[in-house]
Amino acid sequence: MRFFSDNAAPVHPAVLAALADANVLDTAYDGDAWSKQLDGRFSDLFDADVRALWVPSGTSANCLALAALCPPHGAIICHRDAHIQNDECGAPEFYTHGAKLLLAEGPGAKLTPGAIQGVLDATRNDVHQVQPHAISITNATEYGLVYTPAEVAAIGDLARARGLGLHMDGARFANAIAHLECAPADVTWRAGVDALSFGFVKNGGMSAECLIFFRPELADATLYRRKRAGLLLSKGRYLAAQILAMLDNDLWIENARTANAGATMLAEAAGDRLVNPVEANEVFLRVSPEEAARLRALGFDFYDWGPGEARLVISWNQHAESIAPLARAIARL
Amino acid sequence: MRFFSDNAAPVHPAVLAALADANVLDTAYDGDAWSKQLDGRFSDLFDADVRALWVPSGTSANCLALAALCPPHGAIICHRDAHIQNDECGAPEFYTHGAKLLLAEGPGAKLTPGAIQGVLDATRNDVHQVQPHAISITNATEYGLVYTPAEVAAIGDLARARGLGLHMDGARFANAIAHLECAPADVTWRAGVDALSFGFVKNGGMSAECLIFFRPELADATLYRRKRAGLLLSKGRYLAAQILAMLDNDLWIENARTANAGATMLAEAAGDRLVNPVEANEVFLRVSPEEAARLRALGFDFYDWGPGEARLVISWNQHAESIAPLARAIARL
Amino acid sequence: MRFFSDNAAPVHPAVLAALADANVLDTAYDGDAWSKQLDGRFSDLFDADVRALWVPSGTSANCLALAALCPPHGAIICHRDAHIQNDECGAPEFYTHGAKLLLAEGPGAKLTPGAIQGVLDATRNDVHQVQPHAISITNATEYGLVYTPAEVAAIGDLARARGLGLHMDGARFANAIAHLECAPADVTWRAGVDALSFGFVKNGGMSAECLIFFRPELADATLYRRKRAGLLLSKGRYLAAQILAMLDNDLWIENARTANAGATMLAEAAGDRLVNPVEANEVFLRVSPEEAARLRALGFDFYDWGPGEARLVISWNQHAESIAPLARAIARL
Amino acid sequence: MRFFSDNAAPVHPAVLAALADANVLDTAYDGDAWSKQLDGRFSDLFDADVRALWVPSGTSANCLALAALCPPHGAIICHRDAHIQNDECGAPEFYTHGAKLLLAEGPGAKLTPGAIQGVLDATRNDVHQVQPHAISITNATEYGLVYTPAEVAAIGDLARARGLGLHMDGARFANAIAHLECAPADVTWRAGVDALSFGFVKNGGMSAECLIFFRPELADATLYRRKRAGLLLSKGRYLAAQILAMLDNDLWIENARTANAGATMLAEAAGDRLVNPVEANEVFLRVSPEEAARLRALGFDFYDWGPGEARLVISWNQHAESIAPLARAIARL
Repeated sequence: MRFFSDNAAPVHPAVLAALADANVLDTAYDGDAWSKQLDGRFSDLFDADVRALWVPSGTSANCLALAALCPPHGAIICHRDAHIQNDECGAPEFYTHGAKLLLAEGPGAKLTPGAIQGVLDATRNDVHQVQPHAISITNATEYGLVYTPAEVAAIGDLARARGLGLHMDGARFANAIAHLECAPADVTWRAGVDALSFGFVKNGGMSAECLIFFRPELADATLYRRKRAGLLLSKGRYLAAQILAMLDNDLWIENARTANAGATMLAEAAGDRLVNPVEANEVFLRVSPEEAARLRALGFDFYDWGPGEARLVISWNQHAESIAPLARAIARL
Repeated sequence: MRFFSDNAAPVHPAVLAALADANVLDTAYDGDAWSKQLDGRFSDLFDADVRALWVPSGTSANCLALAALCPPHGAIICHRDAHIQNDECGAPEFYTHGAKLLLAEGPGAKLTPGAIQGVLDATRNDVHQVQPHAISITNATEYGLVYTPAEVAAIGDLARARGLGLHMDGARFANAIAHLECAPADVTWRAGVDALSFGFVKNGGMSAECLIFFRPELADATLYRRKRAGLLLSKGRYLAAQILAMLDNDLWIENARTANAGATMLAEAAGDRLVNPVEANEVFLRVSPEEAARLRALGFDFYDWGPGEARLVISWNQHAESIAPLARAIARL
Repeated sequence: MRFFSDNAAPVHPAVLAALADANVLDTAYDGDAWSKQLDGRFSDLFDADVRALWVPSGTSANCLALAALCPPHGAIICHRDAHIQNDECGAPEFYTHGAKLLLAEGPGAKLTPGAIQGVLDATRNDVHQVQPHAISITNATEYGLVYTPAEVAAIGDLARARGLGLHMDGARFANAIAHLECAPADVTWRAGVDALSFGFVKNGGMSAECLIFFRPELADATLYRRKRAGLLLSKGRYLAAQILAMLDNDLWIENARTANAGATMLAEAAGDRLVNPVEANEVFLRVSPEEAARLRALGFDFYDWGPGEARLVISWNQHAESIAPLARAIARL
Repeated sequence: MRFFSDNAAPVHPAVLAALADANVLDTAYDGDAWSKQLDGRFSDLFDADVRALWVPSGTSANCLALAALCPPHGAIICHRDAHIQNDECGAPEFYTHGAKLLLAEGPGAKLTPGAIQGVLDATRNDVHQVQPHAISITNATEYGLVYTPAEVAAIGDLARARGLGLHMDGARFANAIAHLECAPADVTWRAGVDALSFGFVKNGGMSAECLIFFRPELADATLYRRKRAGLLLSKGRYLAAQILAMLDNDLWIENARTANAGATMLAEAAGDRLVNPVEANEVFLRVSPEEAARLRALGFDFYDWGPGEARLVISWNQHAESIAPLARAIARL
């Protein structure tokens, strides 16, 4: 069993079926019947007038959002462990034309208003330093923690007070909502979020993520940037169809619940070994090298995550029966 | 019947089937079993050691190639009607960080050594002007003409003599090869081409094009650029599988032959109305506005292409029987 | 005698004297007593509330202006022979992060509303093409012609109607004003100009040009861009002092009058040989290669400017007595 | 007396005199008699074949060097307190087109091989992370410490072993050499430095710094980048003349000795109050807010530098007699 990454999981059958259903002649780019539904469907989901743009990757969703919120001579405050800082090969710098990421600290890759304020305080307000224009947070975080609506709102308040945009990297937004059991609006625009990278690929999709702007005017220039980046795929209906399939019947939230439940099962087995509370679909364990080796010998694959730690990620298709053997193995360590 | 664009066509069933076949757990990004086959499969096809990178769009293939061939302070010579100049919203400038396109003329969007030489001659060799570093040609061209191996080789010789890289935008490369009936190598690396955007989407694919480097070292930095641009999709196997399905059983060339045959049928019906010789899957007709209206009244859709001209594009799935009514209608005009 | 370029001329003694006067301890960058005078002095000169930023080169003035008026995914309309297109090594693309220059034609490097409209008409209003955001004109032009207030206003009206910014490259703005004998405001903001590169170096200065924003809010981000480009020199008082010395006693206009007068003297001697009317300090002559050789044999240096043409540029320090021998030599050809 | 910054100091009379001497007609840009001497003069100074390019600011020297050493998708390792990180408004990101600065720690803003190795070790060698391509160190550092030849060589060895370029920000290079009393070559190319920003402005110059390439081929593309950035001033002889004046009679080292001597005098007076050893022309003192107020009441100006610390910078024109009153005041605190 592989617990490397939710990117390794296959695609949900409903998504494949949606591709087949979309396999007809239609207008190119985003002029087709599927793409045209996105604004409306997400406006319904978020109970607000939003603009929803498909893109083929989470990195592109994140970086188009950042480019909409921060000029080339500005800065974006994010966590030291953020994906945009560590895992996108400088894509934020590419898309923003050289804006700077200013790094804040916090346990579990989670930012607080205090940590953000610390970065703001360390910045002189003169032309010799890049000035912060945006904050980017990740929900669920890189360490599987979930920001509550109140936590986001506290950051949103700070952002508003300082005139900063607020972006949420929601590569695992579904997992966060499955944990919070709140309305998607509560942890986004009602809490001050301007732009959300709504992830589907890790949650059963194939190649479509959705960039949501809660301030619709941010979409205007982004439409040009998306094209200019080579992201406006010519047969866009196959991306829109994936996303619509995920929204239909709340598949997105069902898949996330399954993955979260698997993680919770492992967390219970892990007990004191947990590095962080398990709130989404990632489990970070303290294991010695030889304990890790024993788990691997039993056929469980995962990443080492720094010395003496392991990361296990549960995917949408890993149900209780497939998790149980690993849970038992962990409990027996 | 719609003859707007080959981007409007659906996806070939074999491509959809390949997606289903690839729907298993595998390594993320391009570490999967499908992606790993690309270098080998294209090296076989081109009878050379090539590097093959999937990307989700033709624009991104073109612009990664240009960025590999031209520094930010350089220039790329292309035709005034090239897709990279007119239809990519400045993507070449984005990917190259501001290199300049220098425009040459020629009938049918086709470059000649003479036209290129004219641009070179007009450039002073000093630091006040951007210096040409690359040439980009499109085969088949935006007007459906096909460069022969000899024509490309003449440009390739000039490129070598002047130290310029040579890129081929092959959004309709399959149609060019179907017309030429030559080995793919003959019109590419044997003729001096360094990088090819090998298009599949217009030819029955869904969302995967392939960037081919005939000088393998050009791929090294491109791997970083691809990631940095948000183009390294996390479930890359679904892109690679599409491309492999197109290579299997020569589907790519079969599809192109079908489309080209349709265009030829229209060309024969069009006679003197042809603006350009028909060599691939595009037909440019001289039609008056009211003739165009008559065709549309019969249910045929297409783009106007400047005053008194119309563009008809034939797709992989438009066989003789579906073309015949349009051919008759054109003949009767 | 050298008539190559007004950049070859020395610096006016008053400018050198101003450097000596400024040679005291003061605040770094632009916090000094000299730099702080610029906004006020230029507001007086232009009879409007302007922002005035020193920069060390005309290229940087031009490109900071363009970056203030055009986003990376936009386009700037300029003349095919504009300095920003031909002589700045892609600086506009560098500063704007890859905006495109769209080229219009017109005799004497002069744009007209009709030529600009032609470019606008050729641009589809969709995300596949970069959309024009600004127009850049040069006064006096690269061929020594001068836009009148009415001519600029006609372009300014078009710019306003289409929501485009308007930049004036005034590397030889002083020569234009000396010719027009109008208020500087008449040919700039009253005619719709948003930003002016006000040149001093060709007119007796050493290393300081001034970027003038007639819409003061455009300066805000430009202050960061100037720093970010390495243009915020640490001892800025020596740039500001040069500019102030040029403004004092109308030195800028006196110098330009001298240069223009020299050009007029040559124009009168040249008669039918003139390629363009002489309105500023440049003279373009039709001369055969052997005629050019005869002039050179007499000790006059100048550039060939295409086949059978020569460019002669008069500098601020070339008075009638030093021009007369050349005028006679031309008349005798 | 002001001890704010060596940028606040006036220009040395010899530099002003050199401007007057250069005030003749000559070729524009860098084709003049002064500019042409730079390569030779610096090759003599460094006992090696170097390329020397004038630029108008330290920021531009630094960032042209970084752009020569690091591609857009790469990273540069520097100290957290480096000028390129904190005081250039993102100029490195602008010039490199979005390369990332990776920050290392160390007392006195000084890097060690160990600190650099720590950054290298934290970087995964895959396409998801920007890969280090260069190291940038500052000599003398932002806190007035000086790297010895052996210290630089240790970093140079690491750079070579890892295939990294090595840049030295020498805004106060003269002060470092005055302290080290070594050959300039010893602490630069002999120790593995590829590019040096050789500062003159803080040391008595007006508006000219020199970018030195010890690997001459690095200059080739930089000549285009310099133009493209608007840094190729049209009357370049006035920059070259400043630099040549500083080299003549070893003025550069004399000025630095004066400034260093002043700092040493203050250091002796300061005793235990010193935050760092004083090796160049900067003195960092521990002073309480009211002690700082007392010094200011006596007419001494300086920057607070974090809580309870003050920075005093000595300029080339502050001789012993002008330093003595401050030294006494510090001693009496």
